[in-house]
Amino acid sequence: MADKKLVEAITSMEEDFAQWYTDVVKKAELIDYTSVKGCMVIRPAGYAIWELIQKQLDDMFKETGVQNAYLPMFIPESLLQKEKDHVEGFAPEVAWVTHGGQQELQERLCVRPTSETLFCDYYKNVIQSYRDLPQVLNQWCSVVRWEKETRPFLRSREFLWQEGHTAHATAEEAEERTLQMLNVYAEFLENVLAIPVIKGQKTEKERFAGAVATYTVEALMHDGKALQSGTSHNFGDGFAKAFGIQFTDKDNTLKHVHQTSWGMTTRLIGAVIMVHGDNSGLVLPPRIAPVQVVIVPIQQRKEGVLEKAAELKEMLKDYRVKVNDSDKSPGWKFSEQEMRGIPLRVEVGPKDIEAGKCVICRRDTREKIEVTFEKLEETVRELLQKMQVEMLERARTHRDAHTYVAKDYNEFKQDFTEKAGFVKAMWCGCQECEDKIKEELSVTSRCMPFEQEQLSDVCVCCGRPAKKMVYWGKAY
Amino acid sequence: MADKKLVEAITSMEEDFAQWYTDVVKKAELIDYTSVKGCMVIRPAGYAIWELIQKQLDDMFKETGVQNAYLPMFIPESLLQKEKDHVEGFAPEVAWVTHGGQQELQERLCVRPTSETLFCDYYKNVIQSYRDLPQVLNQWCSVVRWEKETRPFLRSREFLWQEGHTAHATAEEAEERTLQMLNVYAEFLENVLAIPVIKGQKTEKERFAGAVATYTVEALMHDGKALQSGTSHNFGDGFAKAFGIQFTDKDNTLKHVHQTSWGMTTRLIGAVIMVHGDNSGLVLPPRIAPVQVVIVPIQQRKEGVLEKAAELKEMLKDYRVKVNDSDKSPGWKFSEQEMRGIPLRVEVGPKDIEAGKCVICRRDTREKIEVTFEKLEETVRELLQKMQVEMLERARTHRDAHTYVAKDYNEFKQDFTEKAGFVKAMWCGCQECEDKIKEELSVTSRCMPFEQEQLSDVCVCCGRPAKKMVYWGKAY
Repeated sequence: MADKKLVEAITSMEEDFAQWYTDVVKKAELIDYTSVKGCMVIRPAGYAIWELIQKQLDDMFKETGVQNAYLPMFIPESLLQKEKDHVEGFAPEVAWVTHGGQQELQERLCVRPTSETLFCDYYKNVIQSYRDLPQVLNQWCSVVRWEKETRPFLRSREFLWQEGHTAHATAEEAEERTLQMLNVYAEFLENVLAIPVIKGQKTEKERFAGAVATYTVEALMHDGKALQSGTSHNFGDGFAKAFGIQFTDKDNTLKHVHQTSWGMTTRLIGAVIMVHGDNSGLVLPPRIAPVQVVIVPIQQRKEGVLEKAAELKEMLKDYRVKVNDSDKSPGWKFSEQEMRGIPLRVEVGPKDIEAGKCVICRRDTREKIEVTFEKLEETVRELLQKMQVEMLERARTHRDAHTYVAKDYNEFKQDFTEKAGFVKAMWCGCQECEDKIKEELSVTSRCMPFEQEQLSDVCVCCGRPAKKMVYWGKAY
Repeated sequence: MADKKLVEAITSMEEDFAQWYTDVVKKAELIDYTSVKGCMVIRPAGYAIWELIQKQLDDMFKETGVQNAYLPMFIPESLLQKEKDHVEGFAPEVAWVTHGGQQELQERLCVRPTSETLFCDYYKNVIQSYRDLPQVLNQWCSVVRWEKETRPFLRSREFLWQEGHTAHATAEEAEERTLQMLNVYAEFLENVLAIPVIKGQKTEKERFAGAVATYTVEALMHDGKALQSGTSHNFGDGFAKAFGIQFTDKDNTLKHVHQTSWGMTTRLIGAVIMVHGDNSGLVLPPRIAPVQVVIVPIQQRKEGVLEKAAELKEMLKDYRVKVNDSDKSPGWKFSEQEMRGIPLRVEVGPKDIEAGKCVICRRDTREKIEVTFEKLEETVRELLQKMQVEMLERARTHRDAHTYVAKDYNEFKQDFTEKAGFVKAMWCGCQECEDKIKEELSVTSRCMPFEQEQLSDVCVCCGRPAKKMVYWGKAY
């Protein structure tokens, strides 16, 4: 009975999705809480996922010419204030350092909530000529935003992320880079995390502080709520003018650079949990699973069983494989594999060895496949590939089944009160309608998708002529 | 003439070593200063070195069973104060966060100067049984120490590092891990950074705050000053008792864990500069060179030259290779390769192409080797290996030539006033002698080396019976 403890302690997602989420992050040992509210320990099982995310995303960045750098974590108050919109957006939620050692600082420093101002200060120093452009830098670091409500991975006071910051000679090149990185994000989410996304532009109301255009990739979680999963911003020359970042162009005239920034965070781990998880725990797409295959020996004290398990591990050495030879029972180990979301489980006992075969169990479908030892490697390879593809397809099917169309405000309201998901609806382009919808339904515009449809001619809220189709949703 | 600008701007190391160092870090574009004293931008050329250090050191860690995790950057004041020696060591030099958003915090938080207290708080939560041991965690992060004097890489207020923190069931196992990690550090410094080290134990005076034993790897810079390059600490059960970290052992009794910690920082980049650099700039050991080979096309506008350069790059695709096809002159590109410390330069022009060969120039020895295109790949492979080995040997020869023996205080004093380097001398084991030596000569005990020699029977300072041979030096 004690074998079932791991699973029994989880709330089912149908009963209480928020509690299910919290149970999974704790029981799968992804995080631990600390005595500082909103600051968490990312435990080895959680951090290993982040390392796989970092590695694969970083490789994709570098293929497009990105270079990594590291800028300080402290921003002097006067520097933060240089760009008006930006400081208004961030100053209310930063942590302030006022003392260094025993001394009060002459000027207080904020712990970076994002580093536009620092990169601008740096670019101002290093950019003189068109030869110094483009600058395409990225950094992997932690940032701090003093949020009131916090949830592991989704909204914490400190989180890990990457932030790319670029400077270009022309507006066209900046816009191109902004969209290029959005596409990298979409590709990464779909191919690596198996999460389908809607690509689009944020409305003016939802734009990043200081940007002229913000693009986003939006994903739908299992409970029908939306999660902004990555954003890419075009700043035009606004920051360059505020910070005086100029270069001498080929025609010998002085011009301001055009800038972009783009970021993804540890919140992606939250997205993976909420898109793929089930009532037995985590389900990890093979490409980001720290352990892709766990081998569970049955009756492991019998002669030859652990040796065979080690042999199978050796056969699977191209994958991330572990033998679970702890003194727990097989049943406990099965639950553990399910809770941790390990894609494949290989069971092998004395009878299997006699018959020259073992059993593979898929985490996502629970399908069991009997396979000879000779075919093991080939089958594992196929199953991991198949699982990666099918997880994306299942998530897409779920998302599409939870995407609704509303043509008038009644339908719109009904969709958000009786169902849960994205709602596509037409919009007049005015912030008043967004404000009204947010106030009445706690719903925000997620994005104006690149793939527009003409659902009707009028705004779903005010009835005036429509300008754009918008994805609306309740968001994390 | 403008071609020589890069080089001419460097102060020679014989004239002013400190200024030479500063010139190199700036001209090789490793760092940029910021408006916050002691906080620097690590530019792409510098950060790429750090990435290569991280990757190789992290692989070595993982081979010994280390797992990565991430703990918060903030430590509540009350948590920092739990271990008496530790807080005394660090409290005077931390940065304090007093406000979050618009609100003053109830308890101020320090930005981590090191994370023993956080790991203890975490281990207290997750360790219950002997089954939960050992815990062998590491994190890559930035830390803050409010230093008064700062120098790029060597001593900055914020720096990047890794910090390993482990918990074990027995004192023996903790001591074993402490020494294991010291050996990893020594191997890494010698084989990857080509820096020979002295391994030994710190005296009580120089021990880490809260440790029962601190081990160190000490390196000698080109100017004869010492640099502490990595430390590994055994904490015994002191922290465990202060934080209440206990486990039920196999014999069903409650015991305190035994802990270790060990760290290396971006100061290693400073060590590489000061051990291998010369008056033309940086010299990078091939294993941490972001670019290992730069191909410089001569008369690049002539037909076929750039094509051949691209062809050679393709032939060398197993290495980190770049073609420098900018519109600068070859002379300028040579200087640039030297300043940036790129191990090999391949020159190829119309005449070379006609003759079916090119010229390779080694950064460290400036030796020029003519080689046919067919032999290029093989020669590059051999030269990179050779250079890695010879750089270590040269550094070892330099270190040995600058290691002196002093048998009495007069000799000792003379060594430190007339020469620069390590001085080996006997010591009685009393802190009074260390204090006196530090006051009179600004010299500190670097370590009691594992390889002891009996140079004489009496302490070099007080003449009482000697207990240990110590390496002494002026240190960064």
